[in-house]
Amino acid sequence: MTYDHNWQLDSIVEQLRDARSEWRSAQGRTHEPGDRELPSRTVMKTIIEALAGALFPMRLGPPDLRKANEDFYVGHTLDSCLNALLQQAVLELRHTHRKQPLECAELRQRAEDIVRRFAAELPRLRRVLDTDVMAAYHGDPAAKSVDEVLLCYPGVMAIIHHRIAHLLYRDGLTLLARIISELAHSDTGIDIHPGAQIGESFFIDHGTGVVIGETAIIGERVRIYQAVTLGAKRFESDDQGKLMKGQPRHPIVEDDVVIYAGATILGRITIGAGSTIGGNVWVTRSLPPGSNVSQASLRNQSRV
Amino acid sequence: MTYDHNWQLDSIVEQLRDARSEWRSAQGRTHEPGDRELPSRTVMKTIIEALAGALFPMRLGPPDLRKANEDFYVGHTLDSCLNALLQQAVLELRHTHRKQPLECAELRQRAEDIVRRFAAELPRLRRVLDTDVMAAYHGDPAAKSVDEVLLCYPGVMAIIHHRIAHLLYRDGLTLLARIISELAHSDTGIDIHPGAQIGESFFIDHGTGVVIGETAIIGERVRIYQAVTLGAKRFESDDQGKLMKGQPRHPIVEDDVVIYAGATILGRITIGAGSTIGGNVWVTRSLPPGSNVSQASLRNQSRV
Amino acid sequence: MTYDHNWQLDSIVEQLRDARSEWRSAQGRTHEPGDRELPSRTVMKTIIEALAGALFPMRLGPPDLRKANEDFYVGHTLDSCLNALLQQAVLELRHTHRKQPLECAELRQRAEDIVRRFAAELPRLRRVLDTDVMAAYHGDPAAKSVDEVLLCYPGVMAIIHHRIAHLLYRDGLTLLARIISELAHSDTGIDIHPGAQIGESFFIDHGTGVVIGETAIIGERVRIYQAVTLGAKRFESDDQGKLMKGQPRHPIVEDDVVIYAGATILGRITIGAGSTIGGNVWVTRSLPPGSNVSQASLRNQSRV
Amino acid sequence: MTYDHNWQLDSIVEQLRDARSEWRSAQGRTHEPGDRELPSRTVMKTIIEALAGALFPMRLGPPDLRKANEDFYVGHTLDSCLNALLQQAVLELRHTHRKQPLECAELRQRAEDIVRRFAAELPRLRRVLDTDVMAAYHGDPAAKSVDEVLLCYPGVMAIIHHRIAHLLYRDGLTLLARIISELAHSDTGIDIHPGAQIGESFFIDHGTGVVIGETAIIGERVRIYQAVTLGAKRFESDDQGKLMKGQPRHPIVEDDVVIYAGATILGRITIGAGSTIGGNVWVTRSLPPGSNVSQASLRNQSRV
Amino acid sequence: MTYDHNWQLDSIVEQLRDARSEWRSAQGRTHEPGDRELPSRTVMKTIIEALAGALFPMRLGPPDLRKANEDFYVGHTLDSCLNALLQQAVLELRHTHRKQPLECAELRQRAEDIVRRFAAELPRLRRVLDTDVMAAYHGDPAAKSVDEVLLCYPGVMAIIHHRIAHLLYRDGLTLLARIISELAHSDTGIDIHPGAQIGESFFIDHGTGVVIGETAIIGERVRIYQAVTLGAKRFESDDQGKLMKGQPRHPIVEDDVVIYAGATILGRITIGAGSTIGGNVWVTRSLPPGSNVSQASLRNQSRV
Amino acid sequence: MTYDHNWQLDSIVEQLRDARSEWRSAQGRTHEPGDRELPSRTVMKTIIEALAGALFPMRLGPPDLRKANEDFYVGHTLDSCLNALLQQAVLELRHTHRKQPLECAELRQRAEDIVRRFAAELPRLRRVLDTDVMAAYHGDPAAKSVDEVLLCYPGVMAIIHHRIAHLLYRDGLTLLARIISELAHSDTGIDIHPGAQIGESFFIDHGTGVVIGETAIIGERVRIYQAVTLGAKRFESDDQGKLMKGQPRHPIVEDDVVIYAGATILGRITIGAGSTIGGNVWVTRSLPPGSNVSQASLRNQSRV
Repeated sequence: MTYDHNWQLDSIVEQLRDARSEWRSAQGRTHEPGDRELPSRTVMKTIIEALAGALFPMRLGPPDLRKANEDFYVGHTLDSCLNALLQQAVLELRHTHRKQPLECAELRQRAEDIVRRFAAELPRLRRVLDTDVMAAYHGDPAAKSVDEVLLCYPGVMAIIHHRIAHLLYRDGLTLLARIISELAHSDTGIDIHPGAQIGESFFIDHGTGVVIGETAIIGERVRIYQAVTLGAKRFESDDQGKLMKGQPRHPIVEDDVVIYAGATILGRITIGAGSTIGGNVWVTRSLPPGSNVSQASLRNQSRV
Repeated sequence: MTYDHNWQLDSIVEQLRDARSEWRSAQGRTHEPGDRELPSRTVMKTIIEALAGALFPMRLGPPDLRKANEDFYVGHTLDSCLNALLQQAVLELRHTHRKQPLECAELRQRAEDIVRRFAAELPRLRRVLDTDVMAAYHGDPAAKSVDEVLLCYPGVMAIIHHRIAHLLYRDGLTLLARIISELAHSDTGIDIHPGAQIGESFFIDHGTGVVIGETAIIGERVRIYQAVTLGAKRFESDDQGKLMKGQPRHPIVEDDVVIYAGATILGRITIGAGSTIGGNVWVTRSLPPGSNVSQASLRNQSRV
Repeated sequence: MTYDHNWQLDSIVEQLRDARSEWRSAQGRTHEPGDRELPSRTVMKTIIEALAGALFPMRLGPPDLRKANEDFYVGHTLDSCLNALLQQAVLELRHTHRKQPLECAELRQRAEDIVRRFAAELPRLRRVLDTDVMAAYHGDPAAKSVDEVLLCYPGVMAIIHHRIAHLLYRDGLTLLARIISELAHSDTGIDIHPGAQIGESFFIDHGTGVVIGETAIIGERVRIYQAVTLGAKRFESDDQGKLMKGQPRHPIVEDDVVIYAGATILGRITIGAGSTIGGNVWVTRSLPPGSNVSQASLRNQSRV
Repeated sequence: MTYDHNWQLDSIVEQLRDARSEWRSAQGRTHEPGDRELPSRTVMKTIIEALAGALFPMRLGPPDLRKANEDFYVGHTLDSCLNALLQQAVLELRHTHRKQPLECAELRQRAEDIVRRFAAELPRLRRVLDTDVMAAYHGDPAAKSVDEVLLCYPGVMAIIHHRIAHLLYRDGLTLLARIISELAHSDTGIDIHPGAQIGESFFIDHGTGVVIGETAIIGERVRIYQAVTLGAKRFESDDQGKLMKGQPRHPIVEDDVVIYAGATILGRITIGAGSTIGGNVWVTRSLPPGSNVSQASLRNQSRV
Repeated sequence: MTYDHNWQLDSIVEQLRDARSEWRSAQGRTHEPGDRELPSRTVMKTIIEALAGALFPMRLGPPDLRKANEDFYVGHTLDSCLNALLQQAVLELRHTHRKQPLECAELRQRAEDIVRRFAAELPRLRRVLDTDVMAAYHGDPAAKSVDEVLLCYPGVMAIIHHRIAHLLYRDGLTLLARIISELAHSDTGIDIHPGAQIGESFFIDHGTGVVIGETAIIGERVRIYQAVTLGAKRFESDDQGKLMKGQPRHPIVEDDVVIYAGATILGRITIGAGSTIGGNVWVTRSLPPGSNVSQASLRNQSRV
Repeated sequence: MTYDHNWQLDSIVEQLRDARSEWRSAQGRTHEPGDRELPSRTVMKTIIEALAGALFPMRLGPPDLRKANEDFYVGHTLDSCLNALLQQAVLELRHTHRKQPLECAELRQRAEDIVRRFAAELPRLRRVLDTDVMAAYHGDPAAKSVDEVLLCYPGVMAIIHHRIAHLLYRDGLTLLARIISELAHSDTGIDIHPGAQIGESFFIDHGTGVVIGETAIIGERVRIYQAVTLGAKRFESDDQGKLMKGQPRHPIVEDDVVIYAGATILGRITIGAGSTIGGNVWVTRSLPPGSNVSQASLRNQSRV
């Protein structure tokens, strides 16, 4: 049932148009073509779910799948989601080059090349993700089976998203990569920038509040807990006071490090291999291999 | 395929009815009319997504939209979602006044007035949100474009929700406002009470775990990071030991303050303009303008 | 529009098959039957939403429901979602016993018994949840009504999920229980292991980042805030260095304890009744009843 | 992907507005309120499907229903679809009285009265439909079971729709009734005007092309085949040459008549009890009981 | 639950591939590009429903629409569905020219031109459809209002589809046109070839079984009933015995003709203005204006 | 918004229960198990659409499919829809044998055998359907391409459904077969009983109103038009006056026959090869090969 109301829509629509005009003028965008289309978060979500199914068909694929016919499912699913990814890649490249538009054919060729390289990496990705699943299973005393780990653990879901996103990030599709990261962030509370480089057998337990920055580098067999930050200490500014983008500014964490909940590690420092960082500890200087830092140990000494 | 089971449903249904009766007796609700309907989280989600599209048509609106026809889209979308909002407003007002029901016409009139005032604020809202988008773009070295910021950043999504929710909160629709806040909280891990007052050019980076309380007041150009709390120190109780509701109990943060990750600021204190609060710092007293507080600085002095 | 691309899918599909084969060999799973089907997260989500509606029909049930006909709705909804739960229970039991498969009839009988016991507990569950709702309403000065609390508060949503999950966990359906917990974790950022034992009148405010471990025991009228961890201090390993699963390793929190945001309580210690744990405090030893611990109090004394 | 097109939408929208204005002027509708809402075909489809499920729960209800819990399903489904029907009834009454709008309360009262009377008729309706199902089963040598008949036979689906529609038609909701009839017409090719009065044990086989007019009266145990028309011979006009609406103008078919495919029976004539009308026969005069009319008999000439 | 079955899918898939290969060889299609995409029936259905809403916004548009904001709805809906139509037009043109593919830009230009011309015709279309609605209202004594006619009458739905389809057919998009016709055919049982030319104020009552051929020409104010055929008498073959396509072979029906149910009119004959053709009559020769033909008149013999 | 109504649901639910009890008593069904589940029309619709896609992947499969990856799609789609068909087959067999229930394993084995045989027939089916498509293309002068025929022609859609249904009918799944037939009947107005035997290169043009009976036998290259009936003349009754089921009672139509619109052919007669049956002709005796029957020839009288 509707009512006898009058929202003065004509006036509101006009004012909103003025607001958009001002924004576009301020952004230097008044001369852009009128049909700019951005990649879609919804489509990317569908693509990632399909990829996850193709990578782990009997666990994340359709419930009625049988081993005997896995390959049909894997092949068809990949065909379908790579086509969809190709279209999103075209949209991102078109947006990236909107000031100097590429030829239509050139645009497509670039997008196809990226998607082809991406597809070729998938078998390797699956093997690396298997190491992550095993790391989760062995790292949590509450884990009952590897299948529970794959179905339920937010840390596993986050690393699947990240490893897919990182492939696209490396090949220049930073917007698609970021959308994928944020899909995982929204679902799990784990915020891994797609630029971060992460080694095999990686495990995040619980995970809510974890932040891993764009230039972080993480070795193999690293385990971290909820609310850990691998962040930047400060941002470099250029001569005009603007933030400099792309500088290495996040930690390097070497192999076999464990970082407990709430620890904060800031800046381009190195946590040496085999170190253990206690809960809530705050670290802003490099640590040698085999370090064992806790709040208690810190309080009895000067701050690292 | 179903089985030969028997859940003893008759008995369970009866016991559940008894449980509801007890609850209603204890709450003094036995005499309420039988058809009380509450606002819907699902409907509010649809309304907010439509409003976001109307505010940013080329980026959050439908993918095939072109500039030439933006106004049609904006006008129709507003018409549709304001009508839907009106119905939700009627539901909230009816619920609020359920002990002394309003006349049907009076109820509608009030709801229409609120929605009309809300609609009239939208152009101003868009301009303020533009300042938030720019703040995000300039505040994060990893941001590649303003479009990435609007599409991907949870902090931006949270502030869009908050500014909409705050308009409704101010005009008395506190339940609808709270539903909107919790939609953002669920998606982003950022928990801003709709009562909080927040100035222009506000940016939350990463965001998971941020909590901003009902009576907090935040100035312009403030930037905060994940897991920051602007909370209450203690709750005032009345003579009978019940919590007093609505008292100012959260911080005032003045213009140009930066608060790093994990900082906790509690109570009705004031953080002076231009201050920087370091990560994980715990603040329970007011700070003068230009303060620069870090864990290190705190350890060398008495606690603020 | 599609393009003239060629993903070399035959080769990729073959390589993915090899990766799966290796994984299965390594896991000793090559001889499992080909049609193993796992419980479904999507189905469990539907079941939980239906159960929540059946428990709170006028608030979480369908909008057009009237008191006069609540019982029909409750009965039909229970019938439908208990049937669905039965099928998920069969899937979990089949998976659990995949190495020594049960007789078909035996499998069904066990699943039916579990679901029947589960159903019989629902009226008690509703009464306990009512105490949680009242705890939330009385515990937050910003709460405007018990209905707002039930509709909006993530802490309430998390405890509804937990109490349901815990029933299944106790009866051996640990995978279904875990799926339910992770549904709540994803929506609210609150991570309660389904094994945790929690008393009546429990309230989590804000909640993002809360972690409560598998063997935690929580008394009545406990209130906790965002980012609180009730975790394990260290994991016991067996003779071969493997983590020992199922050992008591998380805290016991007695009645009437309040734990403020960011506090970390680790290990099988006991927080005595009536204690208050301040924000960000780190506790690894037992505390007597009535303790009042804050960062300030800790700094003036040796660490608890 | 969109293109650089320009549809001149402003001009088209303006011309369409002019066309609407002219139509409204011609129809004398320019002064009607702006928010007139019509009943919804989609909603009526949902209502009818729910009613069919409530009438035949084990066959047209949800697949997992069990006899033990039928009543819960029936009760809840009726509650839900009668509420929905009430809203559609309000819309029709408001539309009917749009020139002299009823008081809001009066409108609701009338709609409720109609729906209450409708609900009270449902048990009788079920019994009558059972006679139709048996008639179908006994009337078709290809029918294998009564369940097949209920699940598959378009004639059965058409009579379920008709009997529901006729109840509403009799009580003045002619628009809702017509919508229901057209839903069946679209699905089955059987066009029964909701005004037609039809006795028990009615069976239409195949059915495509059957037309039964508004004032037709059909006795018990009548069987008809595809493409049979029970139509009007000519329309009465009033003094000004306008068609007179509502006059009896369609046939009366008495008990136990069989009418074979393609027969056409026109005008307010009576087909006497027990008659058989052959395929393709054209009848425009009354027939005594026990008549047996075929093309051959009519023509007294040899047939192939 | 799945079973231990084995469909021999590898073999079946291979045999199906062979069958496709043979078909393609036989059709000379082995060298066509691999990504040929056809227009979509589902998309066309969505487009037509949107167009119908834009043409009749208060009756076929969204239920909450108000007159004050019709233009926003109309403009946005047209923008959206013309874009979708453009994409379907590109697909048809690409398919049509698949043996001698057009340049990408040329293809788009042609599609845009067609859609632009189509859009420009819509206001005229609306006025013609208004005459059809009035013809239905005045032509059926059972019609209660013009709104019932537009909402319920299959004949009205069929003519809306036809007039849209005919515009596209005339401009060369015969496949899209045919898809639209078949959507109406499936819903209403009325089969009007999109090539048929039909004047204003056209009304089909009941409609099931009506067939109107590709080259039929129908004047103004014509009324026809169910199961009427305006068909071809025989098909012309060329020298090699193949059917000649596109020859005029269906009737011309002049203004003000009424054709009753089941009449069959075949061949390129002319039914003169103002004629009445009785039910079931079979006509294969031209009739002068004002003819009145019935079975009785044809046979000169008594009828029942 | 809901109202203060009261449907007396308790009473209505009770009366409906009584009606069901009476029906079950009358049908001798009171002792059947409580969880009888029938096959689902909705599921069968999905299965048929998937099968159609697997048979004609580039035309009825997903729009983004490319030839290079057809086999993946075909294999996965078949795997998925044969599994779904298996479950429906189990339901039908369980229903068929409900009075003497089969062992669980026996039931499954039978269903699997039927589905395996069905699957093995699919390649042959595709080849036969190709002949039908060609027959449609060559038989209609309005057909523009074989793709248009497959996408748009209701006659082609009906024969795809029929040939699938007939396979199941022959193997005893008569209920599933009937459901498939009625899906086609509802969409196209063409009613072919799944028992009918139809040769290659079969074409039905327009099709609305066509009825082909259970025991009809149709040769190769037969073409029929709308409203043709191949029906039974009379039904045989047994000693007790009950209809005898399964007797041959419909026509045999030999190769190369054409039957024009509206013709009615009744009884177990034979229409000799190469005959042409004119429109509206009524035939109840066998015709020798090469017959040419029209209304004119039958009546030996002039026609208009």
